[in-house]
Amino acid sequence: MINRAHFADAVTWRRNLHRLAQPAWLEFYATGLIATQLTAWGYEVKLGSQIIDAAKQLLPPSQERLAQEYQRALDAGIKEEFLAPAKGGYTGVVGILKGDLPGPTVAYRFDIDSNEARESASLAHRPAAEGFASEVPGCAHLCGHDSHVAMGLLLARYFSENHGKIKGAVKFIFQPNEENLSGAAAMIPKGVLDDVDYLLGGHVGVVAPQTGSIAIDVHSSLAVTRSEVTFRGKPSHSGTRPDLGKNALLGACAAITNLYAIARHGLGPSRINVGVIEGGSTWNVIPERTYFKMETRAIENSINEYMQTKAHEVLRGAAAMYDLEVEIIPAASCPSGSNSPKLVAVGLEVAKKLPWVKEVIPDIAWFGSEDFMLLADVVQKKGGQALFVLHGTPIGGGHHSETFDIDEEAIYNGADFYAALYDSLVK
Amino acid sequence: MINRAHFADAVTWRRNLHRLAQPAWLEFYATGLIATQLTAWGYEVKLGSQIIDAAKQLLPPSQERLAQEYQRALDAGIKEEFLAPAKGGYTGVVGILKGDLPGPTVAYRFDIDSNEARESASLAHRPAAEGFASEVPGCAHLCGHDSHVAMGLLLARYFSENHGKIKGAVKFIFQPNEENLSGAAAMIPKGVLDDVDYLLGGHVGVVAPQTGSIAIDVHSSLAVTRSEVTFRGKPSHSGTRPDLGKNALLGACAAITNLYAIARHGLGPSRINVGVIEGGSTWNVIPERTYFKMETRAIENSINEYMQTKAHEVLRGAAAMYDLEVEIIPAASCPSGSNSPKLVAVGLEVAKKLPWVKEVIPDIAWFGSEDFMLLADVVQKKGGQALFVLHGTPIGGGHHSETFDIDEEAIYNGADFYAALYDSLVK
Amino acid sequence: MINRAHFADAVTWRRNLHRLAQPAWLEFYATGLIATQLTAWGYEVKLGSQIIDAAKQLLPPSQERLAQEYQRALDAGIKEEFLAPAKGGYTGVVGILKGDLPGPTVAYRFDIDSNEARESASLAHRPAAEGFASEVPGCAHLCGHDSHVAMGLLLARYFSENHGKIKGAVKFIFQPNEENLSGAAAMIPKGVLDDVDYLLGGHVGVVAPQTGSIAIDVHSSLAVTRSEVTFRGKPSHSGTRPDLGKNALLGACAAITNLYAIARHGLGPSRINVGVIEGGSTWNVIPERTYFKMETRAIENSINEYMQTKAHEVLRGAAAMYDLEVEIIPAASCPSGSNSPKLVAVGLEVAKKLPWVKEVIPDIAWFGSEDFMLLADVVQKKGGQALFVLHGTPIGGGHHSETFDIDEEAIYNGADFYAALYDSLVK
Amino acid sequence: MINRAHFADAVTWRRNLHRLAQPAWLEFYATGLIATQLTAWGYEVKLGSQIIDAAKQLLPPSQERLAQEYQRALDAGIKEEFLAPAKGGYTGVVGILKGDLPGPTVAYRFDIDSNEARESASLAHRPAAEGFASEVPGCAHLCGHDSHVAMGLLLARYFSENHGKIKGAVKFIFQPNEENLSGAAAMIPKGVLDDVDYLLGGHVGVVAPQTGSIAIDVHSSLAVTRSEVTFRGKPSHSGTRPDLGKNALLGACAAITNLYAIARHGLGPSRINVGVIEGGSTWNVIPERTYFKMETRAIENSINEYMQTKAHEVLRGAAAMYDLEVEIIPAASCPSGSNSPKLVAVGLEVAKKLPWVKEVIPDIAWFGSEDFMLLADVVQKKGGQALFVLHGTPIGGGHHSETFDIDEEAIYNGADFYAALYDSLVK
Repeated sequence: MINRAHFADAVTWRRNLHRLAQPAWLEFYATGLIATQLTAWGYEVKLGSQIIDAAKQLLPPSQERLAQEYQRALDAGIKEEFLAPAKGGYTGVVGILKGDLPGPTVAYRFDIDSNEARESASLAHRPAAEGFASEVPGCAHLCGHDSHVAMGLLLARYFSENHGKIKGAVKFIFQPNEENLSGAAAMIPKGVLDDVDYLLGGHVGVVAPQTGSIAIDVHSSLAVTRSEVTFRGKPSHSGTRPDLGKNALLGACAAITNLYAIARHGLGPSRINVGVIEGGSTWNVIPERTYFKMETRAIENSINEYMQTKAHEVLRGAAAMYDLEVEIIPAASCPSGSNSPKLVAVGLEVAKKLPWVKEVIPDIAWFGSEDFMLLADVVQKKGGQALFVLHGTPIGGGHHSETFDIDEEAIYNGADFYAALYDSLVK
Repeated sequence: MINRAHFADAVTWRRNLHRLAQPAWLEFYATGLIATQLTAWGYEVKLGSQIIDAAKQLLPPSQERLAQEYQRALDAGIKEEFLAPAKGGYTGVVGILKGDLPGPTVAYRFDIDSNEARESASLAHRPAAEGFASEVPGCAHLCGHDSHVAMGLLLARYFSENHGKIKGAVKFIFQPNEENLSGAAAMIPKGVLDDVDYLLGGHVGVVAPQTGSIAIDVHSSLAVTRSEVTFRGKPSHSGTRPDLGKNALLGACAAITNLYAIARHGLGPSRINVGVIEGGSTWNVIPERTYFKMETRAIENSINEYMQTKAHEVLRGAAAMYDLEVEIIPAASCPSGSNSPKLVAVGLEVAKKLPWVKEVIPDIAWFGSEDFMLLADVVQKKGGQALFVLHGTPIGGGHHSETFDIDEEAIYNGADFYAALYDSLVK
Repeated sequence: MINRAHFADAVTWRRNLHRLAQPAWLEFYATGLIATQLTAWGYEVKLGSQIIDAAKQLLPPSQERLAQEYQRALDAGIKEEFLAPAKGGYTGVVGILKGDLPGPTVAYRFDIDSNEARESASLAHRPAAEGFASEVPGCAHLCGHDSHVAMGLLLARYFSENHGKIKGAVKFIFQPNEENLSGAAAMIPKGVLDDVDYLLGGHVGVVAPQTGSIAIDVHSSLAVTRSEVTFRGKPSHSGTRPDLGKNALLGACAAITNLYAIARHGLGPSRINVGVIEGGSTWNVIPERTYFKMETRAIENSINEYMQTKAHEVLRGAAAMYDLEVEIIPAASCPSGSNSPKLVAVGLEVAKKLPWVKEVIPDIAWFGSEDFMLLADVVQKKGGQALFVLHGTPIGGGHHSETFDIDEEAIYNGADFYAALYDSLVK
Repeated sequence: MINRAHFADAVTWRRNLHRLAQPAWLEFYATGLIATQLTAWGYEVKLGSQIIDAAKQLLPPSQERLAQEYQRALDAGIKEEFLAPAKGGYTGVVGILKGDLPGPTVAYRFDIDSNEARESASLAHRPAAEGFASEVPGCAHLCGHDSHVAMGLLLARYFSENHGKIKGAVKFIFQPNEENLSGAAAMIPKGVLDDVDYLLGGHVGVVAPQTGSIAIDVHSSLAVTRSEVTFRGKPSHSGTRPDLGKNALLGACAAITNLYAIARHGLGPSRINVGVIEGGSTWNVIPERTYFKMETRAIENSINEYMQTKAHEVLRGAAAMYDLEVEIIPAASCPSGSNSPKLVAVGLEVAKKLPWVKEVIPDIAWFGSEDFMLLADVVQKKGGQALFVLHGTPIGGGHHSETFDIDEEAIYNGADFYAALYDSLVK
C-alpha cells in the first residue's frame, strides 16, 4: 500500500509539471525531474541516446524550440547533468531497481508529454483558479500525462522504500511523445523492453470518469497511421493564364473529399481524418503547394492497412487528376492491441480487494489509440504479458479540451493499484 | 434569281421532311427524296458507299432501327432504287452538274438530319396547328435541317433550269449526321471534296433571328470533341462487404465534378459538359459500371486539345482513385474554323444588292459548332475557299426547343443568296 | 419429422419456381402455386387485398409488366381463381390451419420474390445444366427464395398431415417483395400479425455455407432506408450559354461524393450506397434532371437515423449549391432487430438433437437486412417472440451472383427444424 | 522632353525603393521619399487622412507590423514630419502643382506598394548581383511599382522645372495598396478625383516586353472581387466520435471543388481562384474552422456578378451540406473598365512621334486587373477621360516571379510619354 504521507509530494510534482507543460520531444523539465528523483531513490537511470533511437524520431522540433525549452528546464532549477543527455530532444527516462531475490522484470510505462493547445484561463478551471495553469505558451497538460508522471514517481518511491518486496526487477519507462505516437517506437530499438516479462500501463479518465473506478480490460483500441501529405504543382497567374498552373490546392481538395468517401469496411470500424490543411500563397496565384495531416484508424491492423491502401490510391489518383506530385511522409503509427488474458484476470482480482475501489469495470471498448499497444505487442510477441487499465477520475471538459482537469486522488489510486498488482505477480 | 414560282414546292418538301423527321444515319426519306429530284433534274447522283466511309461512321444505329426507318421511307413512296445504296445507314447524297464552259467547282453543303427529341403538340406551334408536325416518335426537325434540304433542292433546280450559267461544275453535298458531328468526317475519305474550289454553306436562324437578315462572316465557331466514357469496377454487396467493391459510380462522380473544374484557358473560351449519365444495377450493390457522354469545346483547336488533355488526366486520375478501369471512346469531333476572307468580301458585296435583304450582319461570333468547319478546313488546306453564313429567320422557342420553327421565306432567301453569289464567283 | 417421401415434390416446386422467376409484386406464379396447394391441404387461404395494403406498396410495377407476368402465371397452368385476387400486384399468400386444442399461434414467414438480374447460362451452373434456369428475361432466383417457398410448402403439408399436433394454430405467411424491403410493411396494416405469438423465419445460405449447419441467433442485422432522389435544374445549350443552365447532373455528383463522405459513426457500423444513377438528355445540353437510388444502413436504428439526417443535409446542400430542386421519395425501410432470447434458447436445444445437423452455429453477426425484422418488431412489441435462423447450404457464386445455387437438402432440413421447433413450443 | 540628366536620380530612387520594399498600407519609405521630394519641388502635398479613408481600408496590417515598417522608414532617413500623417497605415501621397494659366486638371496615378514575396538571391538576378535586392524579409518589388514611383518623381520634377507649361494643374496620385486592390477605393471618398479632367496611368512590362514599345489602348481588363471565406463547425475526436463533429475542412473542400466547377459564362471570359487555405488544429480532431481566400474575375462587371452569385450559392450550399456556418468577408474589388477613345487617339498620335519609341501597340487585351479602373470609372462618370498604357520593358522571369526585373530605360520612357501627352492635352 502506497504511503499516504507521500501523496502531497505527488500533487506538488503534478502541479509543477502542469505549470511547465512541454510537448513531444521537448519534455526537458519532466525528464530532469524524474531523473533527479529516481537517482535520489537509488535507481539505475538511463537517459538520452541510451533509450531513444534518433533515427526513429518522427517530426523532431526545430533547433530554436529545442534550445528554448531546454533553457526553460534549466531555469526551473533542473541540474544540467540530468538534462544534457536529452539535449536535442532525446527526452524520457528509464529507471531500474533490482531486488535481491530472483524474479521477473515488471515494467511500468508512464507517458510524460503535454499537448500543444491552450489551457482555459477561466477561474472555473481549477488549475487557473489555484495558480498552476500552464505557463508555456501554446502548451498544456490537457490529457493528464502530468498526473501519469506523478503516479510513476509515487510508485517508484514506494519500491525504493520497500526494496525487500522486489523479486527480479522493477523498471520504470517514462516515455516521451505519446501524443504524436512516436515515443514508443523510438525506445524499442534501444532494447528497453528486452528483459521485460510484464508490461503495465494505463491512463487517467477516458471512459472511466469516476474517482474510485478502475477499468481493467480496456480493449478495442484502434490502430492508427498518420502521414504528412504534400501536393506540389505549378504556380501561374490565375487571371491571365490559369491554364498554365497545376493547382495543388484543388488536387488536395479532390483528395480530401474522396478520402472521407473510402468505403466503410465490412469487418469492423475504420476512421479517416484530415486534421490540418495549409496551402497556397496569395489570391491571384494558382496554388503551387498544399500540405495536410491525414490519419487513418481501425479496430484491426488489417483494416487499417486497407484504409492506408485505399488512401494512397486516392492521393495518387488525385495527383494524377491535376498533374501534381504527391509526397506522403509517415508521421506516426501504432497498432491495435489487446491485453493479456491472464493479466486481466489477475488485475480483476487485485482491483476488487482495494479499499478505495468503488467500481471495477471488467471490460470496456474505448476506441482510442495509444502507443502503449506498440510496446505491448513487442512484449507479448516474445512471450511476456501486458495490461493497460484506466484510472477513474472526472475529466473536466474532457480530454484535449481547454478545461480538462482531474481529481488528483487518481494519482494515489493508480500507484496503489500497481503496487498491489505487483504483489500478485511475484508472490 | 430563284424562280418564285417554285417556292411552293420547296415549302412542300420542307413540310414533308418535317413530318418524316429521321435522325443521324437514318435519314432515308431525305436521301430518297433528294436522289429522286436530282436525278430528275439531270444531276449525276452519288449514294451510299460512294460517299460514306463505313469505317468513319461513329455511333451507328441498331439494325432494328435501321430497318424500321428504311421501311418508313419506302412506305412514304420512295423508290427502292434510290434507297438501296443507303441501306445500313449510308445516308446522304452528292449531286453534280457540269457546265459546258471551264470553271471552278462550287460546292454547296446542306445537312439533312433531324434531332432526337420530341416536338410540341401545342396548337400555338405552327407545325402542330397546320398538320405537319413530326410523326416519327422521339424525332423532330428542331434545328431547321428540313429547310436546309428544301433550300438545297430549290437551288439545284435553279441550276438545272439555268444550265448555261454553269462554268466548271456545281456540286451539292447533302450531308447526313450533322447533329452528332460525324457525317462530314465520313464523307471526306470518299473524295467528296477533292475537286472543290469553293465550299458554301449556312444555317437558318441561330444569331440571325430576323427574316431578311443575313450574316456573312460567321466566326468564332467552337471546336468540339465528344467521347463516351465508361468506368468499370467490381460489384459487392454494399451492406455486408462494401470494402470489396470498386465503385464505378463514385469514381465517375469524382471525375465529373473535377472535369467541370478544369482551369479556364487564358487565351480564349472553352467549354465542358457531361450531358448524359447512367450506371449501377440496384440499391444494395456497389456499382460495377457507370457510363457518361462528355464533350469539350473551345474557340481554338489548340484550346480544345488542352481541354481534352486535361479531361483525360481527370478521367484517368479518377479511375486510379477508385482502382477502376476507364474506357474513353471517341464519339465525334470537329474543328473550329474561319471563313476565307476573300469569300467574305464577295459575300458582303452580293448580299448588299439583293432586293429582299433588310440587314447585312457583316460579322458575328456565334460560339456554335458545325462539322461544316471540318469540310472547310479540308478545302482551305488544299487552296480553296469556304464560307459559312446565317440565313435570317425567327426561330420560335429556339434551336433544339420543342417549339422551334422558322419563317419559310428563309428557304427562298438562302437559295437566292447562293445563286447570286455563284454569279460573282464565276464572272 | 418431415416425411422424406415428400422431398421430391419440394424439389419439383423449387425448380418450377426457379424457372418461372418473378420479382417484387409480380410473384403471380408463386402466389398461385402456394394458394393451390394450401387450399388442397385444407388451409384457410387469404389473398390480395385481404393481406396487402395497396397504400403501402412502394415502387409498384407498370401496368404492362403486371399484365405480362399475370399472363405468364396463367400460361403455366395456374387457375384464375387463385390469381384474380392478386391482380394489380397484390401478391403473397397467408394460410391458416387451426388445431383442435387451444394453444398459441405460431407463424412461419417465407419470402417468395426473385431478383431482377440475369442468371448464368454456363453448364457449370446446375440450373442451366439441368434445365431449370430462369426463363423470365432479366429475372432469376439468385437469393434462394424459390427454396424458401418449397420449404414452406413442405412444412405446410406436414402440418396438414399431422393435424393432431397442432395446438392453437399454425399460420404461413408467404410474403412478396422482400428484395425491395416493402412486402412486410404492406402486410402489417392488414392485421396479418395480430394473433401471432411466435414468428419464425430464416434464410438459406448467407454465412452458413455448409449443408447440415444451422445458425440460431442471427444478430447484427442492419436497419436500412432507401430513397429515390431526383435533382431538377434547367437545361441550356452547353456550348453557347452554359451559364443559363442549372446542372442537375453536376449537383447529383456533388451530392453523391459527399454522401459517401458522411462521418463514420463512433458507436457502430453504418453504410451508404448510391446503387443506380441516370440523368441528362444529350451531349450538348446542361442536364436538367438526374435521378439516383440511395440507401443507408446501420447496426442500430438510431445510427441509421443519423445517416438519414446527414444524407438529407448533403442532398439539400448540394441542391442549394447548384440552385436545383431536390425530391427525396421514400422507397423502402426496415429496422435493425434481434431475436427473442427465449426462442434462441429453445432453438439451440432443438437444433442439437436433429439427426441431420452437423454444426450448430449458436450466434452470428450477419450485417444483412431483412424486412423479417419489421415483422419481428411488431410481434415483439405486443409481447410475442421472434426468431430468425440460417439454413446451411453451399451457395455457388454467392447471393445475388449469376451463379448462385443451393443444395436442395436445405429445403428438407429447414422444414424439419421448424417442425421440431414447433413441438418444443407447444409441449 | 524629360531632362536626361535627371535619369540617374530616378534610377537611384528606384533602387532605394527596391531595397526597401514595403507592401500594402506599409509603404512608409515610399510615402516619405515622395513627400520629401514633392515638397522640395514646390508641390502642395497631401498625406494621411487627407487622402485615405480609414473606413475603406480593407485587411489592415497588425499594429506590430505597422510599427516595425514605420521604424524602418525612419531608420532610412525619412524625416518624421513626412511620415507622421501616414502612421497607422494611411500611406500614399497626393501632390498638386498649379499653373498660372487656366486649364484642365491632369492627374497622373502611380502605385507604390511592393509584393509580399521573396526575391531571388541568384547572381543571375540583377538586383541581387548589383546589391539592391530587397532587404525586407518576405517583401519585394516583383511587379515594378518601384519603377512607377521613380517614373512619377521624374515627371513631377519635370513639371516643377517647366512650370510655365502648366495650364490648370497637374496632380500626382501616388496610390498605396494596388496589389490588394484596396488603395484606390480608400482615396476616392476623400475627393482626390473631384477636380480631375484627365486621369493617366500605366504599368511597366506585362504584355509589352520590349524596351521602346508602348501599348496605348490596353483593354479587356478583368473585374475582380476578393473575399475571405471562413467555415465554422464543431470539433470532435476523430477516433472516438467523428459523428459528433461538424467538419469545416471537409465543407471547405466541397466548396472549393465546386467553385472551380461553376459554369463558364457564354458571353465572355470568367475566372475563379482559391489562392490560400488554412484550417484545422491537429491530426485527430475533426476540423472546427477552415479559412480561404477566394477571387473571381470577369471581362464584364455583369459576368463577375454572375460569378459572385454562383460562388455564394456554392459556399452556402457547402455549408448546408455539412451543417456549418460560413462567413464571407469582402476583401477587395475593382471593376473592368476601358480607356476613353479620344485619349486613346491622342495617345497614339503622341507615341508615334517620340524618338525612343520602337513599336506602338495600338490596342491589346491584357486580361489583368487594376484598381486604376475604379479611379477611371469615377473620372469617366463625371465627364472626364482616362487612359491606361503599358510601358515596354523586358520583365525577367515575369511579374510576381522571384526574378522579375525591368530595363530602367522604361522609367525615362514612361515619364517622357506622359510629358509629351500633356502638351497635346493642353495645347
